[in-house]
Amino acid sequence: MNNIIVQKYGGSSVGSIEKIKEIAKNIIERKKVDNKIVVVVSAMGDTTDDYIKLANDITDRPDKRELDVLMSTGEIISASLLAMSLSSLGCESISYNAYQLDIHTSGDHGKSQIDDIDISKIKESLDKGKVVIVTGFQGLNDEGDVTTLGRGGSDTSAVALAVKLNAKCEIYTDVDGIYFTDPRKYKGAKKLNEIEYEEMLELASLGAQIMHSRSIELAQKYNIEVYVGLSCGKLNGTYIRSGENMRLEERVITGLATSNDVVILTIKDLNLNKVSSLFECIASKNISVDMISQTAPIDDIVNVSFTISKEDLNECNQLVQRYADDKDIVIDNKVTKVSLVGLGMKNTAGVASKVFKIFKDNNIKVKLITTSEIRISCAINSSDEEVAINEVAKVFNI
Amino acid sequence: MNNIIVQKYGGSSVGSIEKIKEIAKNIIERKKVDNKIVVVVSAMGDTTDDYIKLANDITDRPDKRELDVLMSTGEIISASLLAMSLSSLGCESISYNAYQLDIHTSGDHGKSQIDDIDISKIKESLDKGKVVIVTGFQGLNDEGDVTTLGRGGSDTSAVALAVKLNAKCEIYTDVDGIYFTDPRKYKGAKKLNEIEYEEMLELASLGAQIMHSRSIELAQKYNIEVYVGLSCGKLNGTYIRSGENMRLEERVITGLATSNDVVILTIKDLNLNKVSSLFECIASKNISVDMISQTAPIDDIVNVSFTISKEDLNECNQLVQRYADDKDIVIDNKVTKVSLVGLGMKNTAGVASKVFKIFKDNNIKVKLITTSEIRISCAINSSDEEVAINEVAKVFNI
Repeated sequence: MNNIIVQKYGGSSVGSIEKIKEIAKNIIERKKVDNKIVVVVSAMGDTTDDYIKLANDITDRPDKRELDVLMSTGEIISASLLAMSLSSLGCESISYNAYQLDIHTSGDHGKSQIDDIDISKIKESLDKGKVVIVTGFQGLNDEGDVTTLGRGGSDTSAVALAVKLNAKCEIYTDVDGIYFTDPRKYKGAKKLNEIEYEEMLELASLGAQIMHSRSIELAQKYNIEVYVGLSCGKLNGTYIRSGENMRLEERVITGLATSNDVVILTIKDLNLNKVSSLFECIASKNISVDMISQTAPIDDIVNVSFTISKEDLNECNQLVQRYADDKDIVIDNKVTKVSLVGLGMKNTAGVASKVFKIFKDNNIKVKLITTSEIRISCAINSSDEEVAINEVAKVFNI
Repeated sequence: MNNIIVQKYGGSSVGSIEKIKEIAKNIIERKKVDNKIVVVVSAMGDTTDDYIKLANDITDRPDKRELDVLMSTGEIISASLLAMSLSSLGCESISYNAYQLDIHTSGDHGKSQIDDIDISKIKESLDKGKVVIVTGFQGLNDEGDVTTLGRGGSDTSAVALAVKLNAKCEIYTDVDGIYFTDPRKYKGAKKLNEIEYEEMLELASLGAQIMHSRSIELAQKYNIEVYVGLSCGKLNGTYIRSGENMRLEERVITGLATSNDVVILTIKDLNLNKVSSLFECIASKNISVDMISQTAPIDDIVNVSFTISKEDLNECNQLVQRYADDKDIVIDNKVTKVSLVGLGMKNTAGVASKVFKIFKDNNIKVKLITTSEIRISCAINSSDEEVAINEVAKVFNI
């Protein structure tokens, strides 16, 4: 069997009839090289947002089953239009939806997970020389009801198809690849030719919303190579792949991510035996706590600091007041979290000390720290963000 | 089993979120009386036209399979929104599409016919007390591809469901019932309380585009009573039913329809043996000829007149020129066709002579005539249309 390529085009790539026509031309060019092409499409442009608005015009809490029914039509529309466009240019093509491919899912409406896909129709159509278009983002549950996979779920549809078809996967989006750090924040930012699954996952969890996290997990599980870039016909974006397939040039650090959606809450003079109860209480309200630090106890009294998302501040503050007086609660919302990610950290001693030295030399105060095997995150003053990014990039030569 | 009501709401009835909310309220009120309600919806407002425009922006001749895929989403959207609206008002409801009900069709894309519907899910949901919403206008073919039934096809979806569910059928549209004649053309026009299937079919074929003709044929075949009216919550529209179920007051004439989309072509001095070849030639180009008249032959020479639709005039004129010189071809495009329809004509002698007398008394020249068992159509000068309608209405007291 020839190589099969699964391409996924995001909402902005299919945002207008002109763009759909352009993609059709790119696909036809590509088909001359790689014969068998499966295309996963998202809904056109802002369709998904428009649907949510429509549903909210009816009720604040639309029925979740019916919301999925509504949402799923966006991909059906773009799939049919792309198929028409290809056919009108003389390239035989066919669109399939979740029912036709029995894209079986489990889990709740709006956040279902793909269990299996029946690829027999796809293979049949590929063998007939057709380009196959598949509606992303959607599946069916045990009841035969339409489900959706959550925002960005078309990425996961594409990787799942690549797994089943033993294909390469290409995700076309509105960025031209994965960068060491956000090019809007550091103009010297370099594009990565390749990045390892774990690193990409850390970056995704830090808020680099280039791809649906679950799609990366799935690619990692089945060792599917995923390309990310612009739909310009050139493959000069970034490959996400296993470390074993990486080139020799090992980098210590692959990514630097920053987030401003951070608040630090500090509780002074808290009795040690209240600490676990405090965090249980916060967790029970589905508020995620990211970084935590605690001072060494003196007479069972400690200071506790932790970070939460800005949107959770009001609710969390109310909870905290059950445990401490107002005067003992300090809120710091001028905070930026700087995170360095890299598989190379595992084998390279002293990355942390190097980072601390950079911050010290530049009078940047580190307020909180957390680390994993391949990540270091530091909470600093927002006013220090620019300097921190520039100096880290300089020292690590990235 | 309780009575089941199948209601169908057309595009203008679900043209906005406000209208959908209003319909939801009407359905909830109705459910208090008739417990089991199935609702068939069309696409919202001009959605279908918008889709055709979108497809035509891609190509003049969009792939028919993919055009059906595109078109079918309109009903899915309105079905989900109506279900959300009902649920938000506390009325449990569920939407089903062509896949979920296996609405099996045969025939070409864009004009498929319903073969069968699996009603098990509908019955299950009705038994649970839910209002069932079904996407009209669509089905599946043997390949599992989406098909559509042609413009107005949701009417046929509704009647087909009523047949399978042994239910009553109610078609809600933007007219408040079937009128003896077009109220815009005759202000004294009366609304009919009931009309027989045959009569309704004749009116539909004469261009009264209130309902999809196939839906009336289907209702007649299975003797399903169909109500037509406004979705105002009151049942004061028109019932289409079998003559056996009619009230005693028999009317001779049930409907008077007029059409201005008529041109008369007359060919003078045509050799008799060319006549059949002429009409074969016209038919081969899919031009429909409605009324035909021929003078008695003198030395095998006749004059032939016939009517066609205005849009076919140019093409037809070119064909006719193969059979006659320009000077022998007369085109009359200031023509109105007036048609009287009524089952009562079968048993009432002299309707035709009564009509001719009306026209003669008012100096209305009858140019062509055709009749069926229950219909008389006359082509007259367009300038005589108003007088003709008024006088016929007066004489037949309608």
